[in-house]
Amino acid sequence: MRDHLSLTQLAQELGAELRLAPGVEPARKINGLSTLQDANTEHLTFLANPNYRRFLKATSAGAVLVTKEFVDECPVSTLCVDNPYLAFARASALFNTAPKAEAGIHPAAVVHPEAEIGPGVSVAAGAVVEAFAKIGPRAVVGANCFVGEGSTLGEGSCLHAGAIVHHGCRIGSDCIIHSQVVVGADGFGFAPHKGEWIKIYQLGGVEIGDQVEIGANTCVDRGALGDTVIGRGVKIDNLVQIAHNVRIGDYSAIAACTGIAGSAIIGKHCALGGSSRIAGHVTIADGCQVTANTFVTKSIENSGNYSGGLPFSDSQSWRRNAVRFSQLDKMARKLKSLEKQLEEFSCRNGKDE
Amino acid sequence: MRDHLSLTQLAQELGAELRLAPGVEPARKINGLSTLQDANTEHLTFLANPNYRRFLKATSAGAVLVTKEFVDECPVSTLCVDNPYLAFARASALFNTAPKAEAGIHPAAVVHPEAEIGPGVSVAAGAVVEAFAKIGPRAVVGANCFVGEGSTLGEGSCLHAGAIVHHGCRIGSDCIIHSQVVVGADGFGFAPHKGEWIKIYQLGGVEIGDQVEIGANTCVDRGALGDTVIGRGVKIDNLVQIAHNVRIGDYSAIAACTGIAGSAIIGKHCALGGSSRIAGHVTIADGCQVTANTFVTKSIENSGNYSGGLPFSDSQSWRRNAVRFSQLDKMARKLKSLEKQLEEFSCRNGKDE
Amino acid sequence: MRDHLSLTQLAQELGAELRLAPGVEPARKINGLSTLQDANTEHLTFLANPNYRRFLKATSAGAVLVTKEFVDECPVSTLCVDNPYLAFARASALFNTAPKAEAGIHPAAVVHPEAEIGPGVSVAAGAVVEAFAKIGPRAVVGANCFVGEGSTLGEGSCLHAGAIVHHGCRIGSDCIIHSQVVVGADGFGFAPHKGEWIKIYQLGGVEIGDQVEIGANTCVDRGALGDTVIGRGVKIDNLVQIAHNVRIGDYSAIAACTGIAGSAIIGKHCALGGSSRIAGHVTIADGCQVTANTFVTKSIENSGNYSGGLPFSDSQSWRRNAVRFSQLDKMARKLKSLEKQLEEFSCRNGKDE
Repeated sequence: MRDHLSLTQLAQELGAELRLAPGVEPARKINGLSTLQDANTEHLTFLANPNYRRFLKATSAGAVLVTKEFVDECPVSTLCVDNPYLAFARASALFNTAPKAEAGIHPAAVVHPEAEIGPGVSVAAGAVVEAFAKIGPRAVVGANCFVGEGSTLGEGSCLHAGAIVHHGCRIGSDCIIHSQVVVGADGFGFAPHKGEWIKIYQLGGVEIGDQVEIGANTCVDRGALGDTVIGRGVKIDNLVQIAHNVRIGDYSAIAACTGIAGSAIIGKHCALGGSSRIAGHVTIADGCQVTANTFVTKSIENSGNYSGGLPFSDSQSWRRNAVRFSQLDKMARKLKSLEKQLEEFSCRNGKDE
Repeated sequence: MRDHLSLTQLAQELGAELRLAPGVEPARKINGLSTLQDANTEHLTFLANPNYRRFLKATSAGAVLVTKEFVDECPVSTLCVDNPYLAFARASALFNTAPKAEAGIHPAAVVHPEAEIGPGVSVAAGAVVEAFAKIGPRAVVGANCFVGEGSTLGEGSCLHAGAIVHHGCRIGSDCIIHSQVVVGADGFGFAPHKGEWIKIYQLGGVEIGDQVEIGANTCVDRGALGDTVIGRGVKIDNLVQIAHNVRIGDYSAIAACTGIAGSAIIGKHCALGGSSRIAGHVTIADGCQVTANTFVTKSIENSGNYSGGLPFSDSQSWRRNAVRFSQLDKMARKLKSLEKQLEEFSCRNGKDE
Repeated sequence: MRDHLSLTQLAQELGAELRLAPGVEPARKINGLSTLQDANTEHLTFLANPNYRRFLKATSAGAVLVTKEFVDECPVSTLCVDNPYLAFARASALFNTAPKAEAGIHPAAVVHPEAEIGPGVSVAAGAVVEAFAKIGPRAVVGANCFVGEGSTLGEGSCLHAGAIVHHGCRIGSDCIIHSQVVVGADGFGFAPHKGEWIKIYQLGGVEIGDQVEIGANTCVDRGALGDTVIGRGVKIDNLVQIAHNVRIGDYSAIAACTGIAGSAIIGKHCALGGSSRIAGHVTIADGCQVTANTFVTKSIENSGNYSGGLPFSDSQSWRRNAVRFSQLDKMARKLKSLEKQLEEFSCRNGKDE
């Protein structure tokens, strides 16, 4: 993170073509990002969604990331790029204000002597790293985190405060695991026996690819036999449940509050909307978009968009319609019977004529 | 918390009018709260919901909080108030048995020398407080909590064991943040690029007003640009997801398992039932009641009650009706066509007659 | 956990009848479990679901747990039992690879001098045990766990890293409480007063029976008055919300992401599917099966199967049907009116003939 960058430096960093507004120096400093509406002269902003075009003309930003077609209507300096949203994402890294973890093991951390700690690693206060765990170069283990026996955290990956990785799990490099995440807790497996539940010990682990991000309070259970697998570049939001032996293909994204039941297989490049539910043992093809609040009850064989969330209404209308839902089968049968009656009439009437 | 209070003291504390049952002394001790059914002679109880009136006559309580109209039918001593449920809430504070945190910094806490710790603050074992954090007077930081760089916790606020507040977040005074809450984790923001996801660093923070309570395992993500904002007196239950840049108006209440997607705006004095889902970027007007399990897919412009959760049934009936749901559009078209046929008949029949 | 067992030992441990494949010694070592498809000659596997019968003939396993009827068609050694799935569960305990906690209090744990620690107990680094807490014989308190004042953890029970048990809660013996679980946070109770919310202090506790398992990031709130109660042998998955004063009967199982609202009563031997929602104050009879994604809005008086989750479809079909849902009451009325018209016709036509 840097305090500020000149317009020239920004253009260079983002591969953008700089066009200065009248009277602006190329050395003009930019010290942060903001929206078109809120930006002041020290901010960089962007126009990605044409719906916000109306805010462009009134912006007070120091500079705006735009595509070629909007350069002329921008009242301030522009940084012209092919993909302003992508350039904005890259700019966000330049102005990231998150404190950087200091390398070294805090005296209040507890690292087992047989753990393997790479160069430049940071282990914060209260973190516990068990025997045979391997923490890769420049990785960060936040405050009060736990890394279980024999687990690995790849190069440059970060466990935020309170994240937990149980024994025998492998996390790739450049991953971000947010606070209170639990990787490798037992999957939910029991054999029924005389009205009781006999625990099936969960003997598998968890394998997480490189460049994965997992949101706060999300759970990724260990496999029963074999591993739960999360592919490269997968992004998972907060409060998501990933059950044992789920497999998620590379570069899929899963929004908050989603639950994926045991042994489900999600393809590559899928997007699951918030609060979606995926039934156990189903397979979802590569490239599927599942909208929010959808309950995927069976396998999806073709890429495409899938939905299942009912829209709401005022409570009175809702109640009226919801009651009818419980009569739906009767309605359908009545409809068929009326259709038949009408056909008969029609026949008879036809004869009559 | 006190061990016991006399009836006279209770009346005074609660602003109630005491009427003693025959033979009861005003110095009679009350040492706890209970329900009308379970109360013994040392308990205070209350009648707020007229549905429980039938339990009043048989109660063995030491005293009952009632409104004027029920004084005469109560067989035991009464504490007459305008709002028994409110008086009960106040009495619950008098008999609260939660252990009180001792002021002082536990030797096993790790407080950065540049953190600012107010008078009477309690920092428990295992807590980590980073540089430039400010802990207000009489605030409590529970065991194994984390307060990130530059964040503030207001006067008298409490972080329960395991709660996490990341850098650059501001929590007001008299707030209660329950265990495993994560305030200020990254919002879920990525720019798609050639089939991969490029992280948008989340540069905003979280601003939480005074008298806010946040339930266990709830997440409040930091803003992407600008803050996520939770107003004064807001109450949030467990396992709730509050995404980046959400704004929640003063005194709204949000029940468990609810998910609020990015940039949604919830008005003041709203109540969201359990497991409700609020889509991103929608606005909900002040004073809305959203019932449990409702999926709010678009903005709500007027206060009122809104619903969206389907009732259940036995599995067989459910399957029959659910199948019909997938034929609903066909049914509607058929209905229209029958209607039209019938009209035609009607016309023809009219001519015939 | 043992590294390996001979076929003879396995047969003895599991009460199975061993039948050796030609050329196999009874001393053949088995060192782990696997599926029929993935097993190698050192693995034990099982056939419980007849759907997997086709994999039996091609298996390379060292031995297979089967019922009598499949012994002859198995190409490798068999361990014949009445219930292969149950035997597999028992075998999973024999091959469990989870590291065993060492007895003793880690020097980086903080145990109050007035806590009572049983023989053989393990308290890991960073754990905090408050005054008057009782940790039963051979119980395990994982890294960074918290056990509040006066709470008890029964013999042989385990709190995994980061689990939190607040004051005044009782957990039975042989329980497994997974990471980031919160037992005994405040229930969500407030009295409305002049547009604000007055906190109702939660004076009850939590009582959890023997042999209970609670999944990661699950919340079990303390009671308002009286306890929240979880019966013997109950199994709860991850990210489940159990509100104040809920009571769950013995041997019930609750899948992930489920929410149970305040004072609901779940019977014995019930199974709640994932993401089910149980409304406050309802009662569910013993032996009910609630399928995934069901919203139980009222009490269920008889055991049986209950459902409420709508299946999904492609987004286009879904939208067409969902729109019709909001017209359902109108459709039902129109259907009635058509029916009536048709009846009138019918009468008239009858007369005409």
